[in-house]
Amino acid sequence: TEMKLPGQEGFEASSAPTNVSAGELDSDLGPSHSPSPDGPSDTESKELGVPKDPLLFIQLNELLGWPQALEWRETGRWVLFEEKLEVAAGRWSAPHVPTLALPSLQKLRNLLAEGLVLLDCPAQSLLELVEQVTRVESLSPELRGQLQALLLQRPQHYNQTTGTRPCWGSTHPGKASDEEEAPLREQRQNPLRQKLPPGAEAGTVLAGELGFLEQPLGAFVRLRDPVVLGSLTEVSLPSRFFCLLLGPPMLGKGYHEMARAAAVLLSDPQFQWSVRRASNLHDVLTALDAFLEEVTVLPPGRWDPTARIPPPKCLPSQYKRLPPQQREIKGPEAPCLTSAEDRHRLDPHAPSPELQRTGRLFGGLIQDVRRKAPWYPSDFLDALHLQCFSAVLYIYLATVTNAITFGGLLGDATDGAQGVMESFLGTAVAGAAFCLMAGQPLTILSSTGPVLVFERLLFSFSRDYSLDYLPFRLWVGIWVATFCLVLVATEASVLVRYFTRFTEEGFCALISLIFIYDAVGKMLNLTHTYPIQKPGSSAYGCLCQYPGPGGNESQWTRTRPKDRDDILSMVRRGLSDFSSVLAILLGCGLDAFLGLATPKLMVPREFKPTLPGRGWLVSPFGANHWWWSVAAALPALLLSILIFMDQQITAVILNRVEYRLKGAGFHLDLFCVAMLMLLTSALGLPWYVSATVISLAHMDSLRRESRACAPGELPNFLGIREQRLTGLVVFILTGVSIFLAPVLKFVPMPVLYGIFLYMGVAALSSIQFTKRVKLLLMPAKHQPDLLLLRHVPLTRVHLFTAIQLACLGLLWIIKSTPAAIIFPLMLLGLVGVRKALERVFSPQELLWLDELMPEEERSIPEKGLESEHSFSGNDSEDSELMYRPKAPEINISVN
Amino acid sequence: TEMKLPGQEGFEASSAPTNVSAGELDSDLGPSHSPSPDGPSDTESKELGVPKDPLLFIQLNELLGWPQALEWRETGRWVLFEEKLEVAAGRWSAPHVPTLALPSLQKLRNLLAEGLVLLDCPAQSLLELVEQVTRVESLSPELRGQLQALLLQRPQHYNQTTGTRPCWGSTHPGKASDEEEAPLREQRQNPLRQKLPPGAEAGTVLAGELGFLEQPLGAFVRLRDPVVLGSLTEVSLPSRFFCLLLGPPMLGKGYHEMARAAAVLLSDPQFQWSVRRASNLHDVLTALDAFLEEVTVLPPGRWDPTARIPPPKCLPSQYKRLPPQQREIKGPEAPCLTSAEDRHRLDPHAPSPELQRTGRLFGGLIQDVRRKAPWYPSDFLDALHLQCFSAVLYIYLATVTNAITFGGLLGDATDGAQGVMESFLGTAVAGAAFCLMAGQPLTILSSTGPVLVFERLLFSFSRDYSLDYLPFRLWVGIWVATFCLVLVATEASVLVRYFTRFTEEGFCALISLIFIYDAVGKMLNLTHTYPIQKPGSSAYGCLCQYPGPGGNESQWTRTRPKDRDDILSMVRRGLSDFSSVLAILLGCGLDAFLGLATPKLMVPREFKPTLPGRGWLVSPFGANHWWWSVAAALPALLLSILIFMDQQITAVILNRVEYRLKGAGFHLDLFCVAMLMLLTSALGLPWYVSATVISLAHMDSLRRESRACAPGELPNFLGIREQRLTGLVVFILTGVSIFLAPVLKFVPMPVLYGIFLYMGVAALSSIQFTKRVKLLLMPAKHQPDLLLLRHVPLTRVHLFTAIQLACLGLLWIIKSTPAAIIFPLMLLGLVGVRKALERVFSPQELLWLDELMPEEERSIPEKGLESEHSFSGNDSEDSELMYRPKAPEINISVN
Repeated sequence: TEMKLPGQEGFEASSAPTNVSAGELDSDLGPSHSPSPDGPSDTESKELGVPKDPLLFIQLNELLGWPQALEWRETGRWVLFEEKLEVAAGRWSAPHVPTLALPSLQKLRNLLAEGLVLLDCPAQSLLELVEQVTRVESLSPELRGQLQALLLQRPQHYNQTTGTRPCWGSTHPGKASDEEEAPLREQRQNPLRQKLPPGAEAGTVLAGELGFLEQPLGAFVRLRDPVVLGSLTEVSLPSRFFCLLLGPPMLGKGYHEMARAAAVLLSDPQFQWSVRRASNLHDVLTALDAFLEEVTVLPPGRWDPTARIPPPKCLPSQYKRLPPQQREIKGPEAPCLTSAEDRHRLDPHAPSPELQRTGRLFGGLIQDVRRKAPWYPSDFLDALHLQCFSAVLYIYLATVTNAITFGGLLGDATDGAQGVMESFLGTAVAGAAFCLMAGQPLTILSSTGPVLVFERLLFSFSRDYSLDYLPFRLWVGIWVATFCLVLVATEASVLVRYFTRFTEEGFCALISLIFIYDAVGKMLNLTHTYPIQKPGSSAYGCLCQYPGPGGNESQWTRTRPKDRDDILSMVRRGLSDFSSVLAILLGCGLDAFLGLATPKLMVPREFKPTLPGRGWLVSPFGANHWWWSVAAALPALLLSILIFMDQQITAVILNRVEYRLKGAGFHLDLFCVAMLMLLTSALGLPWYVSATVISLAHMDSLRRESRACAPGELPNFLGIREQRLTGLVVFILTGVSIFLAPVLKFVPMPVLYGIFLYMGVAALSSIQFTKRVKLLLMPAKHQPDLLLLRHVPLTRVHLFTAIQLACLGLLWIIKSTPAAIIFPLMLLGLVGVRKALERVFSPQELLWLDELMPEEERSIPEKGLESEHSFSGNDSEDSELMYRPKAPEINISVN
Repeated sequence: TEMKLPGQEGFEASSAPTNVSAGELDSDLGPSHSPSPDGPSDTESKELGVPKDPLLFIQLNELLGWPQALEWRETGRWVLFEEKLEVAAGRWSAPHVPTLALPSLQKLRNLLAEGLVLLDCPAQSLLELVEQVTRVESLSPELRGQLQALLLQRPQHYNQTTGTRPCWGSTHPGKASDEEEAPLREQRQNPLRQKLPPGAEAGTVLAGELGFLEQPLGAFVRLRDPVVLGSLTEVSLPSRFFCLLLGPPMLGKGYHEMARAAAVLLSDPQFQWSVRRASNLHDVLTALDAFLEEVTVLPPGRWDPTARIPPPKCLPSQYKRLPPQQREIKGPEAPCLTSAEDRHRLDPHAPSPELQRTGRLFGGLIQDVRRKAPWYPSDFLDALHLQCFSAVLYIYLATVTNAITFGGLLGDATDGAQGVMESFLGTAVAGAAFCLMAGQPLTILSSTGPVLVFERLLFSFSRDYSLDYLPFRLWVGIWVATFCLVLVATEASVLVRYFTRFTEEGFCALISLIFIYDAVGKMLNLTHTYPIQKPGSSAYGCLCQYPGPGGNESQWTRTRPKDRDDILSMVRRGLSDFSSVLAILLGCGLDAFLGLATPKLMVPREFKPTLPGRGWLVSPFGANHWWWSVAAALPALLLSILIFMDQQITAVILNRVEYRLKGAGFHLDLFCVAMLMLLTSALGLPWYVSATVISLAHMDSLRRESRACAPGELPNFLGIREQRLTGLVVFILTGVSIFLAPVLKFVPMPVLYGIFLYMGVAALSSIQFTKRVKLLLMPAKHQPDLLLLRHVPLTRVHLFTAIQLACLGLLWIIKSTPAAIIFPLMLLGLVGVRKALERVFSPQELLWLDELMPEEERSIPEKGLESEHSFSGNDSEDSELMYRPKAPEINISVN
């Protein structure tokens, strides 16, 4: 016998009498509400400028217990993903991507085509609806009565509110009035209600086996006015759609699967859009066919059927799928951050008017001030939100930890020329000033790794030449401020566009390696000062524990918006947010408990500079010869390059378009940094630039997100609560904390080295460069399915990595020579190397391995990309760029 | 306009003229080979007892470069999963589950229905095939010539053999004879050839846009005799199927997607089976429709289209999908281990004749000997394989590590009454004897955790009563042997069936906790003996590193067959296999390098017992009163229970049906253990029972697997190379290693404590109990999607966990009292508690939380399971039990 293609009979039937009868019924029931493509709701929404249809909550009620104890029970629900009731376990499953069997879709199509389709049904209650739905010729009056009674029976919903025990609504229908009310109350108190946005509507699918029916009964109803249909749905939402799939028992789980198919169809935005505007059965079937045209098919037997696909981190854009009308209304808003980032990636500089050269002296600075000035009042008013309070607490602790760590390390590196006291004071003064004046007020200033490295080199240089350090350093600061002013005047910040990932990662890798090398070196040095007791040297052996790098300090890696997990409890989050504080406390506690003779942080007993005998103001010459103040211009030039790179790489990351901030001020920020250089140098305080990680954490703690979202869907990003007050308060608090400083003399230095080591390792492991280095050592078979490996030949990837490694090796060698102090210049050389790479790699390869420089971007041949695609074949590839993670930068300046 | 359901027109066409013309062509071309369901190949395979159709390798050659530079290029290949050529990157993608767009399947159906279908085509070469395929009426002679030339053009295959650079076959067709040969040579040298089993056949899909065609041209050919068609395919396989999909350019990637659909179809075993037996177009289309009936559908827009689904660890069984004829031939062989395990789980005891009670004294033992005797010669002959050599090396190192660790710990616990020397000697003697005599010769005997714990308790008991330990211990051993003999005589081993996961995990958890507690306690004790140097006590501080638990010792967790990763390089695997050896070496090296005064392993300078002044034979009474030899019966009773449980839990795990061993010998094994008890007690050596982890590692290293397997498919498990020789050689080598023992005095005890700690933590983290304890602390939203949570209410899961925790707490409390030595009795009490749980939990709940005891199994109502399913609804649930991992047991006896 011939096996028919599923759905075929149905389609034939649909162009046959049934269609007519359905049409008749349709017009019969609602003549005055003949549906039209420009129905009231549609026009209305257009007029009001409301672009979206209401969200649809879909619920599946199944008829169970045939033949003895018939009852309706909710067994599934959908908004975007599917949640299934685990009947035996009495809980809702986690939201997952629904999978369907193709035949069930086809069977559903047949049933609908032969069944009843009521569009714009005027029913105002469940009773009216049931009466309309059961007006089918094939039913005898008696059967109709039975069916109506059954449909009016109250369904049982699994109740979430009553704690962990599975609890079902009362079974016996219509007993007393207070029993009637109880489920309604539950319905209103359902926590799901809060999750759904206002205006959401419900759709209900009723399905099951009903022995007394002789033939299947299918009905699809769109209500003209959405009404709350008693306790039909789990949440008290007005119902818009109603779908009934009943019939005599058949093999397998036919009705259940058909009902799931109907629910999945209704949860599809495209189908929803079409069916809301459908004027007859034919439109509904057309929408179903359009859905079928778009489904993805998995072949049988290649798939673990019990695996539930978790919701993807980023949903594919529905934009392309929408019909043109809807598309125009909806606007180009992207569904999730990644694609916004991607727009930035494809066109990263064009939308930044901040980086357009004006061609006038200080033109950029003036424009920055003009751009930011109108926002100034709102920069304070926007802070009136509870969220800002918790952000202050969080960022304050991070800032103080940083001040202690870098203060301690600076004091260690400069023999106490700087120290914790200076670090606290400087952080408070510079940070607060920057918050008040800067272009990007969310930036948190801090001592950063590169500057620390430079300062160490500068100190050893001045020691080699027996210089008075602080006066020499003052002149370096004066020169740096001067050079930075020149950079501001000449609008040098627009060159930021030449900092590609290649440069950023080279910068990051070198600094990270220096961190790791130093931390390990310091620890080994300690074994000289505090040697390990040899068996012979004493009657006692020794055993002590190293309160080390503290592997649980995840704060530094989890602050990126994308990495945000959905753990909302404050306990957990609090623990992980303050893990580095905890690590320090634990280290100090262990040290105190064991009473170890570890070297401790140097802290003055009262509020005065760490170096004994100096005042807060640095004398301009000290013991140095006057011409050292001129010679200071040379290291200052190098430091200016370093400050410029460190500051601007961070600024670029913070001012990404996808964060939807009020606008950047690259020139203004650099200007502020220059002014603060002067101040901190004169007072002998540490130097400050923007810190990537803390600033990102700051932004992250001020995210605004849509609360109402479908189960399984990640919350929508709405913007950042951008203002100047949180930063200001954080730094005022830091200033107040100076009086805490004397307590800090209990912090052992090895604990700070541990944090230092951890920072280096974390930064190094976060960058794509490290991944590519691992690829060098990995046989092709075991390599992960990285997108760049799909598009660039492995040898080319290796070549790129090898060049980067060679650069890094060269930098390291020069760093180890007496010429170490010129390393900022070499970092700048990376930009040159990257430029030269254009001769070695094609733009396509660079697009995947790095990102494009401005000129390359203009030159990228559209044709070139196409030609690759014509070879590669898979439809989905066009959008791979969309899903490409915008990699690392996170720990770029190692704080 | 109406949107047609895809595929519908095609189906109509198939019952129309085209079918006839295809039929005509068919009979026209091969009249003497009219296809029949019992075609030659089919009967032949039946007669030869070859049940399976040959494996099919499918290749997609695409026509690219229209219109200037037409060329065929291989862009995809399939065996079970899809591999896609990343054209830009010049590499094959990792194998992945293919996903298709539904319309492409429908379009393919239409094209085939209207096109040419040649079944049993007699072509003997590509030329003949091309001539047959192009005999279509719609083609003008000129076009036909052009098309033939094009089809004869040599396709380009991405060449894997020539290293990492992408290299394509020569472009210019038919230049010189040596050029002709080059690709053929490459074809033969293709490494893929070795992966495919002998007899494999090829199917080729050719597709592309061809401007000069006026209408699409579709052809599907099944060759009567598979022939190598020149360099058409990448590997030199005889081709069976040939599919041509050409046509004028159309929108999108129509032909590419259609061709992928054709390839995926051909790679489906069910479709393959049908199409090999199809006698006309109609059969082919029917097979395609049957395929469509079974596909899984993912709705649009809920899926990251760039995600490639990796091949699942366990494929769903194809058994149900096969037509009945094939099913009978194929036999019940399961596709992967899990489902075999599952058969065991559903019916775990019935297939074990070893556990049937005979009812006669020593009946079980006699049956064991009878069952094993016929295998005895093969137990030596089967060892003649290179694999056994590497197994010996691997297991030898593991055994020696174990001997050192447990020897050291025993020496530590018994003040040198035992030690490394005894451990080596005992392991060698007992192990070798067991290998020669036992029922399960793959078992590796070892000191295990529970016995170690008991021995420590016994020693402290005898110290409390000032007993001469070794003579007392000898009597304990004599009594244990006696009791064990009684257990053998009464066939007590059949009670093994009452050891469910509840008991196993309770056993494991308690021992693990003791391990962890002891290891930490030992370390803290060391701080008394070797105190930490306080600042005041010396001018020096101290700093030393703790060569600790060695987090990289993954040997103990990766030995389970299922955990086997596919890293085949000896270097990597070697490193991970010997990680605990490496950890010990590293610890010793660091200790030696830093010259720490750590306590070291006690090792005699020559081959003599560790305790100075005793001979190898233990005197029967020593300084003890004679009646202590009677009193020893009491601790012996407890030790017997412990030995019985420890030995039999391991034996059950080792003798699982899914390992397909020659047969178990529970009674015989226990008998051997009893005899060895006598021997080791008399010589003052450690006591030995089967060690789970090393024995499993032994089996794993002797796995036989099918080498030829499709890319992405896990190799098929064929059985275990079960023999007595590897074990014997391992223990002979261990005996020889006694002369190594003096070197071992450089091993610091803290290193062994570290390994001890690691063992405890690893064992504890491997059991389901730990997972459930974590569930107690986790909000429902964040709980993982465990299968048991889908079927058992959370409160019931928590109740079960709480009862287990309470049992454990009680055991721990009793263990901490002076009555600690009776803890084996309490372990047995777990079986009783488990039995009592039947009153609290339903059989369904116990099935998911634990496993069933024999009586419950009989009582489990089929209806009960069904009723759950009738509520739960999803088709796939029936088979969830199939995918349920047979959990933990891995580290059960903590070695």
